[in-house]
Amino acid sequence: MTTAAQLDSTDPLAGYRERFVTDGEVIAYLDGNSLGRPTRASVQRLTEFAEKHWGGRLIRGWDEQWYDLPLTIGDRIGKVVLGAAPGQVFVGDSTTVILYKLIRAALAARPGRDEIVVDTDNFPTDRFVASGIAAECGATLRWVSSAPDGGVTPDQVAALVGDRTALVVLSHIAYRSGYLADAREITRIAHDAGALVLWDLCHSVGVVPTELDAWGVDLAAGCTYKYLNGGPGSPAFGYVRAEHQDSMRQPIQGWMGSANPFEMGPDYAPHAGIRRFISGTPSVVGMLAMQDMLDLIDAAGMDVIRAKSVSLTEFAIDLADELLVPRGAALSSPRDPERRGSHVTVDHPAFSDVVGRLWERGVIPDFRRPHGLRLGLSPLTTSFAEVQVGVEAIAEELDAA
Amino acid sequence: MTTAAQLDSTDPLAGYRERFVTDGEVIAYLDGNSLGRPTRASVQRLTEFAEKHWGGRLIRGWDEQWYDLPLTIGDRIGKVVLGAAPGQVFVGDSTTVILYKLIRAALAARPGRDEIVVDTDNFPTDRFVASGIAAECGATLRWVSSAPDGGVTPDQVAALVGDRTALVVLSHIAYRSGYLADAREITRIAHDAGALVLWDLCHSVGVVPTELDAWGVDLAAGCTYKYLNGGPGSPAFGYVRAEHQDSMRQPIQGWMGSANPFEMGPDYAPHAGIRRFISGTPSVVGMLAMQDMLDLIDAAGMDVIRAKSVSLTEFAIDLADELLVPRGAALSSPRDPERRGSHVTVDHPAFSDVVGRLWERGVIPDFRRPHGLRLGLSPLTTSFAEVQVGVEAIAEELDAA
Repeated sequence: MTTAAQLDSTDPLAGYRERFVTDGEVIAYLDGNSLGRPTRASVQRLTEFAEKHWGGRLIRGWDEQWYDLPLTIGDRIGKVVLGAAPGQVFVGDSTTVILYKLIRAALAARPGRDEIVVDTDNFPTDRFVASGIAAECGATLRWVSSAPDGGVTPDQVAALVGDRTALVVLSHIAYRSGYLADAREITRIAHDAGALVLWDLCHSVGVVPTELDAWGVDLAAGCTYKYLNGGPGSPAFGYVRAEHQDSMRQPIQGWMGSANPFEMGPDYAPHAGIRRFISGTPSVVGMLAMQDMLDLIDAAGMDVIRAKSVSLTEFAIDLADELLVPRGAALSSPRDPERRGSHVTVDHPAFSDVVGRLWERGVIPDFRRPHGLRLGLSPLTTSFAEVQVGVEAIAEELDAA
Repeated sequence: MTTAAQLDSTDPLAGYRERFVTDGEVIAYLDGNSLGRPTRASVQRLTEFAEKHWGGRLIRGWDEQWYDLPLTIGDRIGKVVLGAAPGQVFVGDSTTVILYKLIRAALAARPGRDEIVVDTDNFPTDRFVASGIAAECGATLRWVSSAPDGGVTPDQVAALVGDRTALVVLSHIAYRSGYLADAREITRIAHDAGALVLWDLCHSVGVVPTELDAWGVDLAAGCTYKYLNGGPGSPAFGYVRAEHQDSMRQPIQGWMGSANPFEMGPDYAPHAGIRRFISGTPSVVGMLAMQDMLDLIDAAGMDVIRAKSVSLTEFAIDLADELLVPRGAALSSPRDPERRGSHVTVDHPAFSDVVGRLWERGVIPDFRRPHGLRLGLSPLTTSFAEVQVGVEAIAEELDAA
């Protein structure tokens, strides 16, 4: 097995680590898939924003820049990490709210169809939002159970979709297992049945090359605080394929998405294009940090990022096989790198006790009930040495448990 | 007429001005009702947050503090500026999204009633959201026209509400005229008809003493970037009276508002109490700055703030009478301080041309079509001298127009 030192010394992205804020107390940060580290540039940007932009430009900042920020950052997300041409991505709201708006818009765009296909292991918000909408709109949820390796296959979707299917809502990468769905093929299958597709990109955006335009994807949503390092709770993004925009309506009709926001007239008409999917005023401060990470991702290149991600997860799996499986743990993530995202999940009944002790020693994985540890590996910030330190610490704590 | 210098020298809040970031180029900032200035403490808080909290605590920050932040800040907003006991206020989402959730919740809580009373001069988002909901839920909007001085009176509401009224949605302070509604009396009248009341507090929160609990208000929403100085687009708050919470459901069912967010179980059940009104992950960075302003408001006291607000608007009206009315302008705000918020609106056909030149010389009022200038006066940051400089500049530009 190649050593961590060897892997780090030949890592073309190793130099990016110094672009991020680090803290000596944390010796292995393995939760980049929950909350990415801040870039150093973002610390400076936040300070400058408060002093110069907010404090100096004051209300003029809206005319000068902020009003268009949800769309200019959206375009940049589209270009750098989504494979989306300009005018199809907006930023603002939480992932939950964007999912609500897009699922409602999709249902209304498929009259006569009343079924939504959802994965049983989709992130709770996706399932909860979909079930709330189903109840209010008289639609039915059709559940896909994740395959044994924790993800949804094209065959499973093909077996469920039909002429009643309005929409298929799935995660590009499953939040528990890290299973990477075949988004292109599943989209094709859904379209063959006349359904629309909404991909939740929360766990893939910024770490897995994605080609929404080329894949024919209708709708997508994702968060910006994982691999886009936007900071805790930074606003999410939504993608609406250009050809759908002007025929779709979303239910939360706010002034920022109206045809003439500053006319303040009596009746709501949706703005042309992607702006109609914006509702209220988005958090400008919340949209700052992601811009710095987009710069770094753009410079590094998504293919290089993906290659390191695969190496990192491969290395983590090798270490788990060597150190954790003999101690009773089981790998819950796909071994096939083609079907694996950037986190690796390992299960062990003792992990619920172990995680607190790991955190205390500065080893920070994520814990998912009932007994999963997720190791989220973020190619621009995670070193191979960090993975090794982390997995060795897990093994030690299992011995002590 | 007392001079600006005299008024400033006896202003008990004058010392607070140095707690805010200022910029020498802006000689009169008269748009504190659109975007409040940053406090100096907030600049430091943002920097420290990125470096130490986000960068240092990383994902542990959620367990340690951020998860409860929408409710702990909500409680603080409730205590300092809303007159609300703990457990009734949440922060997160935009005002628009919160209005959507609360109006939907209110309609569902009044089965058999299908009318929503709305002010024709309510802020567009309020009207747009309400009309969207009316269309989707089969409800009817009943419109109140603002009275001659730009606000809605109790008599007008009494004439419209009845046994079909589910909800009355009004602004506490009208965004154009600055008219301050009699919220207590209107709430009583709506209740007598069996209706619920939702107050939009965007233009009153932090500047007008408000007693939601004592007034019997059912629901309220407001933004935090005006007189709460949370920064552009900072997350809004929602208030839901304790007695309504457990019988109300909101439509955007997200994991952060579910009964057991970390259980990640199959079915959504709403959390007990106010948390059920949260949907997705709120912007933590966006919630930082408002905390510093709440500290300052708490120290200054709402009654002292209100007294200065009345003096500032009185002074602005005196100056407008002296300098602008003779030049053809007309006051559009109430002269009665009991019915006036903290901004003063003056209309003149030339104002659409004048506003750009004012901004160039560092005098920053807000322009509202077709030809209104709003002078938004924020008691902790606006000096009387600033009002005088501003109104004099407006007069000069009218002469030059």
